Amino acid sequence: MNDKNRFSIESLGASQYTSPLQLSTVKGDHIFSFVSESDRLVFDPSIQYYNQCLNDGEAPICMEKAGPRQNIFFDAKNTTAAIVTCGGLCPGINNVIRGLVMALHYFYGIKKIIGIPYGYEGLNPEKGHDFVELTPDKVKDIHQFGGTFLGSSRGEQDVSVMVDTLENNRVDMLFAIGGDGTLKGVNAIGEEIAKRNGKISVVGIPKTIDNDIDLIDESFGFQTAFDVASPILRDAHNEATGAYNGISIIKLMGRDSGFIAASAALAMPVVNFVLIPEMDFSLEGEEGFLKVLEKRLQEKKHAVIVVAEGAGQQLFKDRKMVKDASGNVQHEDIGVFLKEKIIEYFKEKRPVTIKYIDPSYIVRCAPANSSDSVYCSGLAYHAVHGAMAGKTKFVASRINNRYVYLPVDEVTKKRKKIDLEGEFWFSVLQSTGQPFFLG
Amino acid sequence: MNDKNRFSIESLGASQYTSPLQLSTVKGDHIFSFVSESDRLVFDPSIQYYNQCLNDGEAPICMEKAGPRQNIFFDAKNTTAAIVTCGGLCPGINNVIRGLVMALHYFYGIKKIIGIPYGYEGLNPEKGHDFVELTPDKVKDIHQFGGTFLGSSRGEQDVSVMVDTLENNRVDMLFAIGGDGTLKGVNAIGEEIAKRNGKISVVGIPKTIDNDIDLIDESFGFQTAFDVASPILRDAHNEATGAYNGISIIKLMGRDSGFIAASAALAMPVVNFVLIPEMDFSLEGEEGFLKVLEKRLQEKKHAVIVVAEGAGQQLFKDRKMVKDASGNVQHEDIGVFLKEKIIEYFKEKRPVTIKYIDPSYIVRCAPANSSDSVYCSGLAYHAVHGAMAGKTKFVASRINNRYVYLPVDEVTKKRKKIDLEGEFWFSVLQSTGQPFFLG
Amino acid sequence: MNDKNRFSIESLGASQYTSPLQLSTVKGDHIFSFVSESDRLVFDPSIQYYNQCLNDGEAPICMEKAGPRQNIFFDAKNTTAAIVTCGGLCPGINNVIRGLVMALHYFYGIKKIIGIPYGYEGLNPEKGHDFVELTPDKVKDIHQFGGTFLGSSRGEQDVSVMVDTLENNRVDMLFAIGGDGTLKGVNAIGEEIAKRNGKISVVGIPKTIDNDIDLIDESFGFQTAFDVASPILRDAHNEATGAYNGISIIKLMGRDSGFIAASAALAMPVVNFVLIPEMDFSLEGEEGFLKVLEKRLQEKKHAVIVVAEGAGQQLFKDRKMVKDASGNVQHEDIGVFLKEKIIEYFKEKRPVTIKYIDPSYIVRCAPANSSDSVYCSGLAYHAVHGAMAGKTKFVASRINNRYVYLPVDEVTKKRKKIDLEGEFWFSVLQSTGQPFFLG
Amino acid sequence: MNDKNRFSIESLGASQYTSPLQLSTVKGDHIFSFVSESDRLVFDPSIQYYNQCLNDGEAPICMEKAGPRQNIFFDAKNTTAAIVTCGGLCPGINNVIRGLVMALHYFYGIKKIIGIPYGYEGLNPEKGHDFVELTPDKVKDIHQFGGTFLGSSRGEQDVSVMVDTLENNRVDMLFAIGGDGTLKGVNAIGEEIAKRNGKISVVGIPKTIDNDIDLIDESFGFQTAFDVASPILRDAHNEATGAYNGISIIKLMGRDSGFIAASAALAMPVVNFVLIPEMDFSLEGEEGFLKVLEKRLQEKKHAVIVVAEGAGQQLFKDRKMVKDASGNVQHEDIGVFLKEKIIEYFKEKRPVTIKYIDPSYIVRCAPANSSDSVYCSGLAYHAVHGAMAGKTKFVASRINNRYVYLPVDEVTKKRKKIDLEGEFWFSVLQSTGQPFFLG
Repeated sequence: MNDKNRFSIESLGASQYTSPLQLSTVKGDHIFSFVSESDRLVFDPSIQYYNQCLNDGEAPICMEKAGPRQNIFFDAKNTTAAIVTCGGLCPGINNVIRGLVMALHYFYGIKKIIGIPYGYEGLNPEKGHDFVELTPDKVKDIHQFGGTFLGSSRGEQDVSVMVDTLENNRVDMLFAIGGDGTLKGVNAIGEEIAKRNGKISVVGIPKTIDNDIDLIDESFGFQTAFDVASPILRDAHNEATGAYNGISIIKLMGRDSGFIAASAALAMPVVNFVLIPEMDFSLEGEEGFLKVLEKRLQEKKHAVIVVAEGAGQQLFKDRKMVKDASGNVQHEDIGVFLKEKIIEYFKEKRPVTIKYIDPSYIVRCAPANSSDSVYCSGLAYHAVHGAMAGKTKFVASRINNRYVYLPVDEVTKKRKKIDLEGEFWFSVLQSTGQPFFLG
Repeated sequence: MNDKNRFSIESLGASQYTSPLQLSTVKGDHIFSFVSESDRLVFDPSIQYYNQCLNDGEAPICMEKAGPRQNIFFDAKNTTAAIVTCGGLCPGINNVIRGLVMALHYFYGIKKIIGIPYGYEGLNPEKGHDFVELTPDKVKDIHQFGGTFLGSSRGEQDVSVMVDTLENNRVDMLFAIGGDGTLKGVNAIGEEIAKRNGKISVVGIPKTIDNDIDLIDESFGFQTAFDVASPILRDAHNEATGAYNGISIIKLMGRDSGFIAASAALAMPVVNFVLIPEMDFSLEGEEGFLKVLEKRLQEKKHAVIVVAEGAGQQLFKDRKMVKDASGNVQHEDIGVFLKEKIIEYFKEKRPVTIKYIDPSYIVRCAPANSSDSVYCSGLAYHAVHGAMAGKTKFVASRINNRYVYLPVDEVTKKRKKIDLEGEFWFSVLQSTGQPFFLG
Repeated sequence: MNDKNRFSIESLGASQYTSPLQLSTVKGDHIFSFVSESDRLVFDPSIQYYNQCLNDGEAPICMEKAGPRQNIFFDAKNTTAAIVTCGGLCPGINNVIRGLVMALHYFYGIKKIIGIPYGYEGLNPEKGHDFVELTPDKVKDIHQFGGTFLGSSRGEQDVSVMVDTLENNRVDMLFAIGGDGTLKGVNAIGEEIAKRNGKISVVGIPKTIDNDIDLIDESFGFQTAFDVASPILRDAHNEATGAYNGISIIKLMGRDSGFIAASAALAMPVVNFVLIPEMDFSLEGEEGFLKVLEKRLQEKKHAVIVVAEGAGQQLFKDRKMVKDASGNVQHEDIGVFLKEKIIEYFKEKRPVTIKYIDPSYIVRCAPANSSDSVYCSGLAYHAVHGAMAGKTKFVASRINNRYVYLPVDEVTKKRKKIDLEGEFWFSVLQSTGQPFFLG
Repeated sequence: MNDKNRFSIESLGASQYTSPLQLSTVKGDHIFSFVSESDRLVFDPSIQYYNQCLNDGEAPICMEKAGPRQNIFFDAKNTTAAIVTCGGLCPGINNVIRGLVMALHYFYGIKKIIGIPYGYEGLNPEKGHDFVELTPDKVKDIHQFGGTFLGSSRGEQDVSVMVDTLENNRVDMLFAIGGDGTLKGVNAIGEEIAKRNGKISVVGIPKTIDNDIDLIDESFGFQTAFDVASPILRDAHNEATGAYNGISIIKLMGRDSGFIAASAALAMPVVNFVLIPEMDFSLEGEEGFLKVLEKRLQEKKHAVIVVAEGAGQQLFKDRKMVKDASGNVQHEDIGVFLKEKIIEYFKEKRPVTIKYIDPSYIVRCAPANSSDSVYCSGLAYHAVHGAMAGKTKFVASRINNRYVYLPVDEVTKKRKKIDLEGEFWFSVLQSTGQPFFLG
C-alpha cells in the first residue's frame, strides 16, 4: 500500500504548448498561479500516519494537485473534445457538461466539442445515434435541469470499436461522466489507445448518487440527493403521525452504501430507524427490528423508517442473483419486504397503518442544488485543465477538500462504505435514537 | 331537479343571541356588513338557465351565501366546539384546523375547543384515544406542515356511540373535515342528534385530494396536489429524455376522477399522454395506446405518461372487487400494469427504458401552497360563522368563486368527474397532443 | 351601463376558411365541440341582477365565450403572427409566449411566428432591434423561467410607425402581452389598422402583477406573486420574533391596489398589519397606526407589517408628481417612510428592532407557479382561437371561472381595487386581527 | 506561531464521573469508541508543512479531536445547562438549539435546560426578560424555521452581571451561539468564572453568515445563505435580459469577506461581475469597472452584478466611521452607490435599465438547508460532549472535514477572507469571465 507512486497520473507526452490562460508564475501579484506539475497533497493527513512517516523517515503518499498547467500538451486551436455520460442519472450531470463546454471554449478556445449521445452506445456506430455539437449557447441553461442533456445508457460496448470512433472523428480528449463501470471503461479505452500509440486523453468524472466511490470526499449529486429526500422524510413523518400506529417506510437509493439514507435522516431529524446495506440486522428476536419497532409504537404511536435499497439482503434466503445491464446485482425490494413483514408481525398485536414511499427517481432526476452546482463546475474545470496538460486515464475529484487528479483505476478498486464504528454512523444513531444493534 | 328549496340549510332553532362581531348593517361605512339570512346566490349562472327561468317566469335555484350573521344561535361564552379529521391525508387539513380554532377563539371568544384524535374513532370511547385541547398557541404554526395535527382514521363508527360522546362532553358544534364517507357520517350524526332533539350543529368541510366532490368549484388541497406533482413531472421528463426511447410513467392520485393527473400535465407541459378514469381506452389496435406510443417514440425518442390511479380499470378482466376500510373499491395498479404491457409490446420491436414513479404519498402529505392556504382559512371561517348561526348538516364551500353553505347530502350524491367533451379536457389534449380517442 | 352590446367584439370580416382543428359540432360524441359565435356568458350572475332583468323583462349583459371557431378568418397556411411583451415583468409571460407559439404552430399549422424584441420599441425600426423567429423548439423550455424571452420595454411608440412595421412584415395578427398602457396601445393600433382598412387582428393578453385589471377574475402571475411572497413573510416573521420588540416591514407590489399584500398576508398568517392603497389611515392619534402597533408590541413583543407600495400616499404632503416611462405616477417609498416614522415614534418609548424587506424584484421575476402555468396556457390558446377567427381589439381572459373575449377598451376604463367593505378584505382583517380603521 | 500547545483546551478539573453513553473502548466491536483525551488531528495537512516538520524533526501543531469522553466532569443527574443566541440571524440557529437540547436530554439525561432570551441581554436581570425552559417537545420542530427560537440581541453586557446570573441560577454550562463579539464574550465570561474559581463550562458555537470565522472550514448557515441567494440570482438574470441593456445589481451579505457573493455566483452561473470586500477596484479608467461593464453590454445587452455589502469601501471618500450596537463599522451602501454611478456613466452613452435587489433579510432568515442541518446537529452534539467533559472557553467546529475543539480566543484573532490568489477566487473568475483586475 505504501507505494509512493501510487497516485501518479499517466501522461501522453511532453507539454510543448504554452497555455492560453493569462495566469501568473509568482506569488503576491494577485493573480492565480499556474499549478506546478510537481505540486502534491498528502493523502492521509492523520497524526498517526504522520508519526509513522516520521518514524520511518519516509515521505508520505501524495496526490497530484489539480489545476491549470503553464505548459500544455494540446494545441488548443486544433483540438477536438468529446463528452459522454453513462449509467444512471444523478443530479449535476448537466452542470458538469456545461462546465466542460465553458472551460474548453472560453478558457482554451477549443471550437469543436462533440456530444456523444446515449452513453458509450453513442461511440458504437451500429447504434446509429448522431453526435451533437456542443456550444456555450446550447448548454448555457442546462444546469437548471436534472437528467443529462446528452442522454445515457447502461452496459459495455466493444472498446476497440469505441476507440475506432474516437480516432475516426479525430477526437483528442474524451470526458466520460459515469460510475464504476464507466470508469473501468475509461481505463480500458485508455489502454487500447496506448496500445495503438494514440494521443487521446481519456478522463473520468466519477458519478454515483450513492456516494460510494472510494477515496474521494464525496461524489457530485450526493448533496442534492439527500437534500431532495429531506422534505420527503418530513412529509412522511406527517403521514406516520396522521394515523394511530402510523408507520412510514421510505426507500432511498444506496445499493451497497447507505450514505443517502443516513444523511437524509440526519438532515431531517424525524426518522427513527435507518437501515443500510453495511449493517447486519435481523427482524426477529428480543432485540430484533420488529420488537424494537413495537416498543417505539407503544411509546410514541408512530414511526418513520428509512431503508437503503441494498439493506437487509441477508434477509432474502435462496435468492437468485440477477444482474442489470451494467452488471450490477439486482436487489430484492427490501422496502416491500419490510412492509409485508411488519404487517404480518402486528396482525395479531395491534392495528398499524403503513405507507411505503419510494422516491428514487424523484431524487435522481432533480437539478443540482447550490452546493453540487459549485462542486460540478469545479470538477469540470479541473478535468479540462488536466486533459489539456496531456494527462490520461485519470479522474478529477476532491479529497480532503482539495481538487486532485487520481489514476482512474485507483477509485474503482472497491466501493466506499459507511464505517459502522465511525463518527458519521454514530451521529446517525445519536440523531435517531436507534440502538447499535438490531438483533 | 328544479326544487327551489334544494339548497336550504337546516337550522337548530331561533337565533336569539347577538353576534360579538363588531360588523355593520349598512353599506358605505367601510365596515363589512353581516350577511343576511336571506342572501342568496344563483346556482347556475349560464345564459341558457337564465333564459329558461325567464321563459318559465320562475326564480332560479339559489344557494345560501356564507358569512357572519348578526343574530346567532349559540351563546359564545358557554359554547364547546369539537374538530375531527377523517380519511386520507390531503394538503391543507392543518390550515383548516388552525382557521377553525382561530375563528372560534378570536372571532367568537369560544374558550373550549376539543380536538378529536384519529378521526371518528376518537368519538368511540372504546378506542381509548384521549381528546386534545386546542388553543391558538398550539395551532399557530401547524399550517406550515402537511398531514393532520389531530390524526385521522378510515372507516365508520357507530353513530349512536359518537352522538353519546358528543353529548357526554357537552359539545355544541362538531366540525368534521373529511371526504365522501365522512360527510355521509356528518349527515347521519346530524340526523341522530335531531332524533334525540339535540342542539348540536354538525358541519362538514369537504376534503378530497382528487377534487371529486360534486357541485363545488374545487376542494382544498387540490391546487397543492398538482403543484407538488408538477416538478416531479418535469424531472420525470428528464428521466425519459435521459435514455434512448426513454419512457416515464407517473401515477398520480385520482380514483374516479382524473383532475390531478390532468391539471399537473397542464401545469408542466412535458407530458404526452394523460390517462384518466373518465376515459375509455384500449392498449391494442391500430389507434390503441401502444401503437400511438410507438409513433411518438419513433418521432421523439422519449415519452412521458401520466396515469391516474383509477384509470384503465376496464383493462383488468376478471378482477375481484376489493374494498378498503372506508369502503372504497381498491383498484388494480394501473401504473405497474401499463409498465408491463409496454415492456411486452416493445420487447421484439425496440429497446425501451421505462421508469415508473409513484409520488402519491409525497403529494398528499405536502403542506398547503399559498392558494390553498387562503382557501382553507376562508372555508374554516365560514364554517364557524355558519355553526354559530345554528345551521347544521351543512358544508362550507365555494361555488362560482363565492363562499356558500350547502346541505351536506347534496354534495355526496355523486362524484364530480372530468367532462370529456368539456373545455378543461380539451385544453389537456391541446397541451399534450394526445388524440381524442386511444383505441 | 346596461348596454347589451357592451361586450361585443369587433371582427375583421367574414370567416371563410374552415378550421383545421378536428373538432365536433355535436354533443355526445366525446369530442370537444367548436364554440359557436353566438355562445354567450352572463356577466353578472348575482341574484339581484337576475331579478332585475326578470322584472324588466330584459336580457342580461353577456360576454362572448372564448374557444375555437369552426369557420375562421385567416388561411393558416399563409398567416404570419407576431408576439410582443411590454411593461414590467410578471410571472408567466414566458408561459403565455410558449402557449401562443404552440397553439399557432400545432393547432393551426402557422409556420411564421415573429418575436418582437423589447416591447413596442421592437416595432420601431429606428430602435434597431432585430426580430426573433419563434419555433416550438426555441420556446419549449421557457416556461420554466421568469422574465420574458422577448425582452420588454416601457413607454409609448408612434402608432403609425408600429402599424407600418406590421404591414411591411405582412403580419396578420399581433399578440401583445402587457398592462394598462399596452392594452391602450392595442386599441390604438387596432384603430389605426381599421383606418387603413387593414386586416390585422390585434389581441391583448392583460398582464399586471398587481391584479388591478378591471372586470377579469384575476390576472396571470398574481397567484405566483403572493405564492413567492408567502415564505418571505414567514421568514420576516422569524426576523421579528428574533428580537425584543422586533418589527418586520415588508413592502410588496401594488401601486393602486393591494391584492398582493392582502393575499400574501392571508396565505401566510403571521402578519399583523396590511396597509393598502385603497385604505385611508393615519399614523398619529389614539387609534392611529402607531398607537395600535404599540399595543401589539406591548402584548406580543413583535409585529409583522405588510405594506403595498402604493399605500399611504395621503401621508406624503407636498409631494411632487413624478411619472415613470410608462406614465405611471411614481410613488414615495412608503416602506422607508414607515420605518422612519416608527423609529421616531418609539425612540423615547421603547427600543425596537426594525427590518425592512423589499422583495419586489424577487417576486416579479419568479417563474410561474402551477396555477398560473395552467392559466397562462389557457389564455394563450384562447387568444389564438380568437385571432384566427378574425376578431380584433379584444383581450382573452377569464371571468366567473370561464374564458371569454372582451373588447380591449372595456378592461382599461378603470382599475380593479379591493372593496373595503367586501368579503375579501374582511377575511384579511379576520386573519390579521387588524381593526377596520387605523386613525 | 509554531506553538504545539496552541490549540489546547482549558479544563474545569478532573473528570470523575463515568459517561452514561454506552460506547466502546475497543475497535472492531461495531460500537463507536469514546474519543480519547489525547486524540489529535494535524492542523496543516500540506506537504510543505509536513516536510518542514520532517526536516526539523518536530511534531506538527495539532487540534483536539471532538467527541464523547468516557470520563466526564459533570454529574449528569445534577447538571443545569443554559443556551443563549446572540447577534444577527443566520440559518441553522434553531437546528443548533434543537441539537443541544436533544443531546443534553437524551444522551446525558440532563433535565434542566434554560433558554436565555434575547442574547446576552437575557443574562442581565435589569432587562427583565424571563428564562424559557427548554425540553425536547418544545424544540422538536424548530429546525424547520429560520430565526432563533430564543430571540437575540446585539451588543455587550456587563460580564460580572452575567456571571452573577449564571451562578444565581446554578448554571453548570453555558452554550453561546454567536459571532465574533459573542465569542469574545465567551472568553470574557470564562475568565471571570475562572477568577471566581467557578466550575461553569462556557462553550461557543461560532455563527457568522459571512463565513468569516478564521481557521474553521465553514460556519453553519453559510451553505444555506448562498443556496437561498442562488435562485434570486437566476431571476435577477431574467430581469436583466428582460430589458435592452438591462442590468441587475444584487447586494449580498459580506461585511469583510465576500464568500456568500462569490459562492452564490458560482452556484448560479449567470453572473458577470462579483465585487467583494477583499478586492480593490476602481470605477473609472480604461480597465475600470464601468468601462468593462460597457463592453459587456455592447456584446451581450445585459449584465448581472453581485456585490458584497462590504465591497468598494475604498470608493467612499471622507466617510465618517459609524458603528452599530455590536461595534461593527457600518458601511455605506455600495449597492445604491453603484447603481447611481452606473446611471450617471451611461446617461449620455446608452439607455440602461437597472434593477437593484437586496435580499439580505430573506437570506439570513431562511431555514437551514439539508447540508447545514446535518452540520448544525454535529456541532451541537460535539459542543455537549466537550462541555460534559469539563472543557471550557472552547468552540466546537470542523476543520479539514473533522470535528475539533479549539480555544475560543484562537478563532477571534482575525477574520477569514477570500485569498485573491487562491483557487476559490480563480474559480469565480473562470465562471464569470471577470478579469483579475478592474481598474
